[in-house]
Amino acid sequence: MSFGLTFFHVVSIVISVLAFGTAFWLYRWVSKQPSSNKRIAEVGGLIRDGANTFLSKEYKTLARFSAVVAILILVFFPSPIWKGQISNNLTMAIAYIFGTVFSAIAGKVGISIATIANIKSAEAATKGIKPSFMAGYRGGAVMGMAVVGSSLLGVTLVLMLTDDASALLGFSFGASSLALFAKAGGGIFTKTADISADLVGKVELGIPEDDPRNPAVIADNVGDNVGDVAGMGADLFDSNVASMAAALVMAASLGNAKENISMVFCYASIGLLASIIGVFTANMKEGGNPTRALNMNTYVTTAIYGVLTAIATAVFGFEWRIWLASAIGLLVGVVIGIASDYFTDDNKKPVHMVAKACESGPAFTIISGTSYGLLSTLPAMIGIGISALAAYKVCEPLGDGYAMFGISMAAVGMLSIVGMIISNDAYGPIVDNARGLVEMGNLGDKALEITDSLDSAGNTVKAVTKGFSIGAAGLTVIALLGAFISEVNIAAVELGKETITGFDVTNPTVFFGLLVGAAIPPVFSAMLMLGVDRNAQRMVAEIHRQFKEIIGLKEGKEGVSPEYDKCIEIATAGAIKELIPAGLMAIISTLLVGFIGGVNAVGGFITGNIVSGLVFALFMSNSGGLWDNTKKYIEAGNHGGKNSVAHKAGVVGDTVGDPFKDTAGPSINTQITVVSLVASLAAGLFMALSLF
Amino acid sequence: MSFGLTFFHVVSIVISVLAFGTAFWLYRWVSKQPSSNKRIAEVGGLIRDGANTFLSKEYKTLARFSAVVAILILVFFPSPIWKGQISNNLTMAIAYIFGTVFSAIAGKVGISIATIANIKSAEAATKGIKPSFMAGYRGGAVMGMAVVGSSLLGVTLVLMLTDDASALLGFSFGASSLALFAKAGGGIFTKTADISADLVGKVELGIPEDDPRNPAVIADNVGDNVGDVAGMGADLFDSNVASMAAALVMAASLGNAKENISMVFCYASIGLLASIIGVFTANMKEGGNPTRALNMNTYVTTAIYGVLTAIATAVFGFEWRIWLASAIGLLVGVVIGIASDYFTDDNKKPVHMVAKACESGPAFTIISGTSYGLLSTLPAMIGIGISALAAYKVCEPLGDGYAMFGISMAAVGMLSIVGMIISNDAYGPIVDNARGLVEMGNLGDKALEITDSLDSAGNTVKAVTKGFSIGAAGLTVIALLGAFISEVNIAAVELGKETITGFDVTNPTVFFGLLVGAAIPPVFSAMLMLGVDRNAQRMVAEIHRQFKEIIGLKEGKEGVSPEYDKCIEIATAGAIKELIPAGLMAIISTLLVGFIGGVNAVGGFITGNIVSGLVFALFMSNSGGLWDNTKKYIEAGNHGGKNSVAHKAGVVGDTVGDPFKDTAGPSINTQITVVSLVASLAAGLFMALSLF
Repeated sequence: MSFGLTFFHVVSIVISVLAFGTAFWLYRWVSKQPSSNKRIAEVGGLIRDGANTFLSKEYKTLARFSAVVAILILVFFPSPIWKGQISNNLTMAIAYIFGTVFSAIAGKVGISIATIANIKSAEAATKGIKPSFMAGYRGGAVMGMAVVGSSLLGVTLVLMLTDDASALLGFSFGASSLALFAKAGGGIFTKTADISADLVGKVELGIPEDDPRNPAVIADNVGDNVGDVAGMGADLFDSNVASMAAALVMAASLGNAKENISMVFCYASIGLLASIIGVFTANMKEGGNPTRALNMNTYVTTAIYGVLTAIATAVFGFEWRIWLASAIGLLVGVVIGIASDYFTDDNKKPVHMVAKACESGPAFTIISGTSYGLLSTLPAMIGIGISALAAYKVCEPLGDGYAMFGISMAAVGMLSIVGMIISNDAYGPIVDNARGLVEMGNLGDKALEITDSLDSAGNTVKAVTKGFSIGAAGLTVIALLGAFISEVNIAAVELGKETITGFDVTNPTVFFGLLVGAAIPPVFSAMLMLGVDRNAQRMVAEIHRQFKEIIGLKEGKEGVSPEYDKCIEIATAGAIKELIPAGLMAIISTLLVGFIGGVNAVGGFITGNIVSGLVFALFMSNSGGLWDNTKKYIEAGNHGGKNSVAHKAGVVGDTVGDPFKDTAGPSINTQITVVSLVASLAAGLFMALSLF
Repeated sequence: MSFGLTFFHVVSIVISVLAFGTAFWLYRWVSKQPSSNKRIAEVGGLIRDGANTFLSKEYKTLARFSAVVAILILVFFPSPIWKGQISNNLTMAIAYIFGTVFSAIAGKVGISIATIANIKSAEAATKGIKPSFMAGYRGGAVMGMAVVGSSLLGVTLVLMLTDDASALLGFSFGASSLALFAKAGGGIFTKTADISADLVGKVELGIPEDDPRNPAVIADNVGDNVGDVAGMGADLFDSNVASMAAALVMAASLGNAKENISMVFCYASIGLLASIIGVFTANMKEGGNPTRALNMNTYVTTAIYGVLTAIATAVFGFEWRIWLASAIGLLVGVVIGIASDYFTDDNKKPVHMVAKACESGPAFTIISGTSYGLLSTLPAMIGIGISALAAYKVCEPLGDGYAMFGISMAAVGMLSIVGMIISNDAYGPIVDNARGLVEMGNLGDKALEITDSLDSAGNTVKAVTKGFSIGAAGLTVIALLGAFISEVNIAAVELGKETITGFDVTNPTVFFGLLVGAAIPPVFSAMLMLGVDRNAQRMVAEIHRQFKEIIGLKEGKEGVSPEYDKCIEIATAGAIKELIPAGLMAIISTLLVGFIGGVNAVGGFITGNIVSGLVFALFMSNSGGLWDNTKKYIEAGNHGGKNSVAHKAGVVGDTVGDPFKDTAGPSINTQITVVSLVASLAAGLFMALSLF
């Protein structure tokens, strides 16, 4: 089927270019902000160099890995080269490479601006909260615009050039596989450094966070960039592409393909436009509340999106039911975000209860934090379930296949404001870095207080945005389950086998897959956390060595500085080593289940993987956020404040929560997407070659 | 259909009576063992009184609760009294009460022998390891024989008297609901006391475990009895009944009902017989290894069961395929047990790695323990999946419905040696108590060493038996999914609605149920753990008060003793208050999902509940066991031994693991069974009355 160059392709390209223009303008704006402090420039330079070094090593490893995968795709997917058409395989392989490259570029852009904006935000903090906030926020927005612009542009170009919606699965798989490893690598790096710096610095020696005597302090700040900026960017690039890909694959298989495809592009473009408007209207008054400013942006963007898509639906005569599905998705995203916020906000009961438990020591801190984290899964699971069900029921009357398309449009709706979400999310590590620079550059207590409050706002908002991205991943993979069935049936028709309509859990092959699939997210998380654990133990040993061997370091003697680069090297080497196995395990187990148990086993496997993946992603993200804010709440002077028994327990909770929320939790998202995409890509092979 | 009084009914009754006879003989044997030490008799009396007081309070609460449920059953189940036949409802209600009473009696018998055997085992430890082991083991075996005898007798009687396999669901629901609350109540009691005693005693004051100065020490020993003996007994009574009920319900719906029912009873009787033989052959040499002795029993019993069932199958002309299914179940049970053992045994890598992590402090202890706990889910999930799949495929050729019957027979096979498992399991808390009595009665270092090694063996074996019971619960609830469909279709035919064949995950109503069902086990666990948390905080405050106000207590002044009863009261009051909500939440959420979303939503709900329930049960049981043994491994002199940094971190890990492995983890088993049974019982109502 030929989809041709439609009006909405052009619109998408124009809006993407507009996003790039916005990113460029913001980049220039941030660069022009004043910076004069030499010490900060020096430290900022160390951070930038560390981040760039890690990134180029990581990308080198991933380039090799991707080349191997590209060759495998070329030979085997969508069907073995000796059986199918080579042009299809070539298209798929190129689309895959395209996806990895786009994702890598988005990460690189993010790092590049974040390591400028952190310096600007730090220096601006000496002038007041407003300029410091704006530097941080606009720095984050560069990343937001770049990621969303390139995902929309990428998807549009792939569809225009190949005229084949299935190629989008290849593009999406490229984005996902890169995200999987970038998130894992960055997550291991950042938490290795963060945990080690905290454990030796805060807990053992009692020196403040970001104290320049701590050998791991630069590595910690580098980690914020490579984990939270580059990794998170790759993650949301992937979610965004996957949601569009799923929607477009399904749209292409519907009767009225052209109109539905137009609709996907139209809504995605409007989402990006709304985010651009949101970025420019973002503002805060001197003395204002940064959390409110960030959340306000989200609500404004949501409202703009709702109104503009309604107008577009009326003007272009799209189906109102599909509009409703996408609006439901967005609305439920907001609700999930609010629920996540409840469990992590330091004004709410969970943080207060865990803080109280801290008084009884670390064991209670862990038990109560774990418990609230487990409780927090319920509202989001219900929310995702209801939005999928509602979107399905709303679109079902439109005809065959529309129901699943409705779910994919709910995912598109939920991710429509992703530009805004990334901007808010990237703001966090930038102001976290700024806080570190203020401390290391001795910019004074007032500046420290300002960056502290900006940092805390970043943490709170993070919970909301993470809720959003987990919810969207959930909806997307449900839609991908539909895409998997489509791919299976295409293969079935070709092979003259029976087509399938779904996966019945009372079929024991499906149930077998379900049980095994459900075990993958825990195993995946465990592998990543053990990576952090191993790595951090090495780094702690190195920090101990430096404090012992470098004379005058502990006392802060003038002119004595630690060997920052040693710690950066350990974090880099460890992360590079550990980033491949966990992701590979997920991919290989999908293939194993498929080749042994066939498509029914894989259907169950994907389902089990989604269900347990969502539970663990929510649990880990929320409990981690909860512990982080509990520690901050105690540090603000509650339950004895800094250096009290409660504080020590709080630090233990925060340390446990670190790999939960920044390594394992957010990577699970990507893991379930990758598994679904691998399954869809290999559907034909499973159908043809499985053992049972 | 009338099943009548068959040969195998009689056999079952005879073997049950034989089991009771064995229990009685063992009871007398244990009672006759010498006991002369006054101090031990006194402390033992305090423990017995505390356990009995708690048990009668708990049973009073549960009696009221069960009365309400019985009335609800009478009015509404299996169909509303104004629509169906009152006699059906009456049968169901009576079967339900019967189930609760049998379960309560089994718990009571267990407590009664355990609080004698602990004294005998303690005193015997002064003579050597063999008599101490035998007193502990034979005490546990009383419980094993009583539980399995009464479950087989109960099931046989219910089927004989009602001639209605569905009534077994009522009986099983009675057993399950009592187990749910008994396990939760006992689990909260025991861990409240254990954690509080350890935290103040070991961590704050540095006094040994079971030191008589500790006000919580008696409560801690009471807890072993009410949680690990009575609670565990109720749990396995429930699993055993549920597996037989599921098999019999399915057998009754098959063409050749009578033969299949005979087969279930025949195999169950042989399992009990094998356990009786195993109990009598159990022995250990002076200087032998208690872990090996316990595991040897399991293997001997397994072998006897395999051989005897094969002979019976040949003699009575049963289907070999069904025999194979049950053998597969038992074999996979052993494999799962071995896998659980790997993750918790102190001779294996995971314990060593976590012990090493302890050197870096509590945060690493938690991160690495959590990681290995998550990893440990994989082999068991694959095992359960494979055994279900294999049993299904093996029995499928026998005709319609036999495949699901095969899965239920795999569960019966896995639980066939449950008498042995309970004996091993109940041995643990008895020798744990004995260790406490040796310490409190000052019976000397050699006796302490002996009971320490017996206690440690109990912990290791526990991991194996827990793996068994989780695996069996998994298979049973898969079989109950089949029972649910049977019940739905009976109702569908009556109401003239379409029957169902299964639950397709691409049906969004099923998927909705799947997501919500998966969130229930985490929420359930969280509620129980928060109960422990709240309760333990109260008890810690009370212990602090006593050490502060009772002059001379801390110093161990002659004649000064703590107010043990205050701590017992706190644990009792807290457990009684907290035991209802979590279980009720699981039951009510099942009903809500059913009345809102209908049978498809419930099908998804049960499935999600099983899948996530198994993952969490395995994770929590294994990580808890791992932390416990890590602490013991450090205490044995590794990584600095007692009072080192590693030991302190190990204690934190153990404390976190306590509610994981003894409160939440094992209760999840029962929770998933209860949800499945509620769904089956209410199937007709959901069909008739659901909103969508």
